[in-house]
Amino acid sequence: MNVRLRPRTDRQTLSERLRASAAVRTAGRGMRTEDFAGWLAGRARAHHFKVDRIPLCELDGWSFAEKTGNLVHRSGRFFTVEGLSVTVDEGPFRSWRQPIIRQPEVGILGILAKEFDGVLHFLMQAKMEPGNRNLLQLSPTVQATRSNYSKVHKGSDVKYLDYFTRPGRGRVLVDVLQSEHGSWFYQKANRNMLVEAVDDVPLDDDFCWLTLGQVGELLRRDNVVNMDSRTVVACFPMQPAEAVALHSDTEVLSWFAAERARHEVEVERVPLAEVDDWVRDEFSIGRPDGRYFRLVAASVEAGNREVAAWSQPLFEPTGIGVTAFLFRRLAGVPHLLVHAKVEPGLQNAVELAPTVQCVPSNWDHLPTSARPAFLDLALTADVGRIRYEVVHSEEGGRFLNAESRYMVIEADMSQAPLEPPAGYRWVTPGQLNSLTAHGNYVNVQARTLLSCLNAGAVELSGR
Amino acid sequence: MNVRLRPRTDRQTLSERLRASAAVRTAGRGMRTEDFAGWLAGRARAHHFKVDRIPLCELDGWSFAEKTGNLVHRSGRFFTVEGLSVTVDEGPFRSWRQPIIRQPEVGILGILAKEFDGVLHFLMQAKMEPGNRNLLQLSPTVQATRSNYSKVHKGSDVKYLDYFTRPGRGRVLVDVLQSEHGSWFYQKANRNMLVEAVDDVPLDDDFCWLTLGQVGELLRRDNVVNMDSRTVVACFPMQPAEAVALHSDTEVLSWFAAERARHEVEVERVPLAEVDDWVRDEFSIGRPDGRYFRLVAASVEAGNREVAAWSQPLFEPTGIGVTAFLFRRLAGVPHLLVHAKVEPGLQNAVELAPTVQCVPSNWDHLPTSARPAFLDLALTADVGRIRYEVVHSEEGGRFLNAESRYMVIEADMSQAPLEPPAGYRWVTPGQLNSLTAHGNYVNVQARTLLSCLNAGAVELSGR
Repeated sequence: MNVRLRPRTDRQTLSERLRASAAVRTAGRGMRTEDFAGWLAGRARAHHFKVDRIPLCELDGWSFAEKTGNLVHRSGRFFTVEGLSVTVDEGPFRSWRQPIIRQPEVGILGILAKEFDGVLHFLMQAKMEPGNRNLLQLSPTVQATRSNYSKVHKGSDVKYLDYFTRPGRGRVLVDVLQSEHGSWFYQKANRNMLVEAVDDVPLDDDFCWLTLGQVGELLRRDNVVNMDSRTVVACFPMQPAEAVALHSDTEVLSWFAAERARHEVEVERVPLAEVDDWVRDEFSIGRPDGRYFRLVAASVEAGNREVAAWSQPLFEPTGIGVTAFLFRRLAGVPHLLVHAKVEPGLQNAVELAPTVQCVPSNWDHLPTSARPAFLDLALTADVGRIRYEVVHSEEGGRFLNAESRYMVIEADMSQAPLEPPAGYRWVTPGQLNSLTAHGNYVNVQARTLLSCLNAGAVELSGR
Repeated sequence: MNVRLRPRTDRQTLSERLRASAAVRTAGRGMRTEDFAGWLAGRARAHHFKVDRIPLCELDGWSFAEKTGNLVHRSGRFFTVEGLSVTVDEGPFRSWRQPIIRQPEVGILGILAKEFDGVLHFLMQAKMEPGNRNLLQLSPTVQATRSNYSKVHKGSDVKYLDYFTRPGRGRVLVDVLQSEHGSWFYQKANRNMLVEAVDDVPLDDDFCWLTLGQVGELLRRDNVVNMDSRTVVACFPMQPAEAVALHSDTEVLSWFAAERARHEVEVERVPLAEVDDWVRDEFSIGRPDGRYFRLVAASVEAGNREVAAWSQPLFEPTGIGVTAFLFRRLAGVPHLLVHAKVEPGLQNAVELAPTVQCVPSNWDHLPTSARPAFLDLALTADVGRIRYEVVHSEEGGRFLNAESRYMVIEADMSQAPLEPPAGYRWVTPGQLNSLTAHGNYVNVQARTLLSCLNAGAVELSGR
């Protein structure tokens, strides 16, 4: 019998191809970068989109379950809004209850790649999501829950889905389960996939081929590249990276294991009806103090989605977030200050987050000593130290106007010492990128900033 | 400012040192392998050990909580026995309730290493665990829950603990959170650590230095090397291993992500009082049909433990397990047939298990078609094809007489085809070993068999 074995890894080759694609920034096979805005506007004009706030009671197909008060869909699928009871061991808030989105199905976020003229291009989609302020953003080739692609909603087929669900249809380059927002989702995970097509790929109207460098250019613009794209790009293996770092890879893993072990986090699912301090009015469920977020409802019309009209609940944060990495060059090598952050919805309670990740208005009423570490540094950073500052939206399919100012800020020794406070550690971008090869390490906000590094939207080496 | 960076990885060097230690099998610095049994018997004689079954109501400090019926300790620590409601999507049993051990604290399983005469030795401990049939087995240097080492039980200090909790006390070589038995524990995780001492290490009476090869020799004996030792040894990075495989590393990860995504598993914690079909008598909580396991109670006296006498609940399986890897040499390279197995207590519901992992007596009443794949092949394997067959105990601190026949069996094409049934896949030992660098991939039973490979207790290459 003749069995053909194959090399266990060709990451090196793949990384080189990705870096070559990242270097192509002004024009690719699909379009010039400068023409992108016009193309996206054209896609917006080509379809009818309409999103309206509606009273909670007008949600079609959704209802509050009698005993629990949980918000559920009549199909029993999609997602539910339930309650979470949380106890943590540090910070000014040690115990609270909150609504949370529970979506146990694992979805697919997949980008299809193909080489044109020796350069990898990525098939990106102009996709409407009701929660995006500008509705249309650049999304992965496929962005589908299992309800989507198993057609629970009786819609049309998801385009290009085959490449991600049928083994052998393309060559899988990346496939890893990653978490999403641990403050708003209960243990959500999606497959982040990069698949290379080996056959001819027909180009649908709402899609375009872009190089990684072009995606990087678009990541410099507010609200263009959606969260789903960003998390997939973050998982592109950009090795080989720097060979040296302040801490070895094993030391980083060990520190992280210790961080996971040291926290005592108690998380219990509770009925939404038992989430105290949150009150329901006609249009929302929120807190009287206006903090954190509200549960709201929207009716949606979209000419180019699998289903043309529907209504759904959304979480709407009550302020814009700040999400920032501090960085320093140590012996010439850029390092990011990561935070092993507790978020109650994460499967392991702790993942690596950016240095700062919060909505400042939620902390305004607290004394300085109780504010998140490094927040004020980020808010008052000298403009000359800000290497990246762009507003991005979180997942527009679940969150309404959930925007954050994503930043990368150069810090100095006095602001961010080599031995940072407990829970913080210096790692290189390459170390963080390596960790995205596996789930439950790097949170979705850190992955957004990592995608900016991978795609060259921000450059940390000397200047 | 002078910052010293270090190489991100020295896995290659570490692997070479581990392989060199695995090659030393007959004698190390501490003792000759043939003297080990005598040493262990000596340790047993040196202490007073006594374990007795007691009625559940005689558990000291433990009680069944009024509302839930959960079995809890008065300190609120250690662990609780609660209920689990499970719905799965395949197999003959789709829905059930069962007792489960909940122990949210992350413990430490740590082996201290030190080089003598150029060879790495490992500090192993003769440790009494009440659930072991022979009480005393070889355990890691440190085996401690946080309750242990934070002294909730007011016992004496855990020896050598400093090496694992104080950064810089030694050199951390491995530190990874791994799951434990997903049928009996709810989302349990322990840090699996290997730390190299750089200073002189005083040798306590109950401890001995062994090479990895000596541990491998002991892994050929029934009930000598305990589960905690086995899982840590499984995480030793034994790279570089084979460079080629039937499926690339990315393909293996992608297949595994798809396996995780395809299963619909619903797991809910419920009060122990609501676990139907389980009945309580004076000495146990179990099922009338006698299947699976019983909850029982034991009183324990141990002269050399942190606390000299206590009582505790234990899970007692009602049959001996069979845990087997089928293997084949494909184009000369050994491959193991792994099973992406659903176990309700696992954090991600699915991890990679051996080909066969079950207690056969639980399946006796079922027709052949409903029996686990490959079970009958393992039970009837020709003795010439059995490369490894040793009885090992599971964690003796929680499980009573929980034994399994661990096997490695050479299969042929007709028994185990290249394209195995859904949920199974051929991977190399090196691929499996690489995955232990991260948690939530390789289950504890697979890690036991992997430890046997790492330590050279079983040899798969040509003969």
